[in-house]
Amino acid sequence: MELWYTEEHTPDVRFSIRVERQLCSVQSPFQRIDIFESKEFGRFLTLDGLMMLTEKDEFIYHEMIVHVPMAANPDIRRVLVVGGGDGGTVRELTRYPGIERIDMAEIDGEVVRACREFLPQTASRLDDPRVNLLIEDGLKYVRSRENEYDLILVDSTDPFGPGEGLFTREFYGSCYNALREEGILVNQHESPYYPDYTRSMKRAHRRINECFPVCRVYQAHIPTYPSGHWLFGFASKGIDPLEAQLYRWERLGIETRYYNPELHRGAFALPNYVISELKDDA
Amino acid sequence: MELWYTEEHTPDVRFSIRVERQLCSVQSPFQRIDIFESKEFGRFLTLDGLMMLTEKDEFIYHEMIVHVPMAANPDIRRVLVVGGGDGGTVRELTRYPGIERIDMAEIDGEVVRACREFLPQTASRLDDPRVNLLIEDGLKYVRSRENEYDLILVDSTDPFGPGEGLFTREFYGSCYNALREEGILVNQHESPYYPDYTRSMKRAHRRINECFPVCRVYQAHIPTYPSGHWLFGFASKGIDPLEAQLYRWERLGIETRYYNPELHRGAFALPNYVISELKDDA
Repeated sequence: MELWYTEEHTPDVRFSIRVERQLCSVQSPFQRIDIFESKEFGRFLTLDGLMMLTEKDEFIYHEMIVHVPMAANPDIRRVLVVGGGDGGTVRELTRYPGIERIDMAEIDGEVVRACREFLPQTASRLDDPRVNLLIEDGLKYVRSRENEYDLILVDSTDPFGPGEGLFTREFYGSCYNALREEGILVNQHESPYYPDYTRSMKRAHRRINECFPVCRVYQAHIPTYPSGHWLFGFASKGIDPLEAQLYRWERLGIETRYYNPELHRGAFALPNYVISELKDDA
Repeated sequence: MELWYTEEHTPDVRFSIRVERQLCSVQSPFQRIDIFESKEFGRFLTLDGLMMLTEKDEFIYHEMIVHVPMAANPDIRRVLVVGGGDGGTVRELTRYPGIERIDMAEIDGEVVRACREFLPQTASRLDDPRVNLLIEDGLKYVRSRENEYDLILVDSTDPFGPGEGLFTREFYGSCYNALREEGILVNQHESPYYPDYTRSMKRAHRRINECFPVCRVYQAHIPTYPSGHWLFGFASKGIDPLEAQLYRWERLGIETRYYNPELHRGAFALPNYVISELKDDA
């Protein structure tokens, strides 16, 4: 018997993984949640059939969404994570002793429950005493906050289904208001390669640009995401990630498998075709 | 009817492309050559079933194998391309007016013939008067050369089948002898992600390291190669690509879609896990 998981990166491109067994399949009020076991990638989580993370390479995404802003401002104390139900982003944040409080607004409690049970690798630090886990809509939550966070991380699904509201002008405006003077917003920013993802990326970038004075994009190699070329948006009220005093981050002695200070700078060096797409208003 | 091309990135991972039609299928004395037409990627070339290039993203590979060394030393005059039968590497080289002669040693004349007929996008500049096309084994050719080239580009298949000899200590030693004092060797260096490719990458790196005093590795996002995370080796008798005077390259006014001087530096900033693999002698 052969069992294969297949994701359509486009209607004409498929990526398939041989599966040993399915560990979990839940239909929550928001989405379908599946966790599989595979030889190549260990366990992996899909939402509505789309790849969210694998045990083999989740470190890349989670290190890059967390350590880039933390190195840009090591004085960050209060953090809001929007989404991120698998816990990987929180896990990386808890490695910073200087962080005092992590609020996490995840709309789907079933994702958290499934990951706690089947993905301890990512969910392990959700019980850190600094973590305040809120099962509610991040879009609504952030609306009521003002001048409260040093960092907001939008660790969302793609901009269709439950993640849709997290790619709107209204949401980015609310994030701006919820951030303090030195505040930073980082969001998963889709991909520049396949047309549907490129459209999402351009739209997100245009909207963030309208809300924040500093607005940059950085990239990582994430082999299990469509095209493997994934982007993150870095927006702030003033802090420029390329002027970070990276020696301060190095002094913290945090061990990483992907991120390092050289790569911090390198990740912002985008290919010309991506720069063009980000400039294109269409 | 549906027609799909599938490449096994590992026995447990498959990448599939919907095909409109097959344009060409040839069994040469060295390998099986296929060219397909697809909606997503335009035409694409496979050798022994493995993806070599697609019209959509070949610019990434060809720009990165050529412009990085050309920017490291814009005074390059004589170039040897080993492999590269599709012509894409030669196409990028011919954009430099300073290059006087390009020798290309491609073992398989059938690849050149098929690409001339079906892939004019890459093969278009093989008729440049500076190009000296040799249908012969690059391994043997380079053995007889001494102190002749400023740049050798190893644009080979993977290290099994006809490309195998191009990953040996003997070959790298011959390249060293064929290069002048300021000589640079760049080779496609496989990928750090899937175990079989990682083994090839480590072996190539160790062997090049034994032959050349300067030995670095840089990366690119190539979505249609396994994992999308592809590496190039940069070796030289003294020139350090990170000390390149990149303003000299900018003055040439060569338009690129992937490469730029910021990215030149960024491409050498490797993730920690790749750095560890390259240091690992096992």
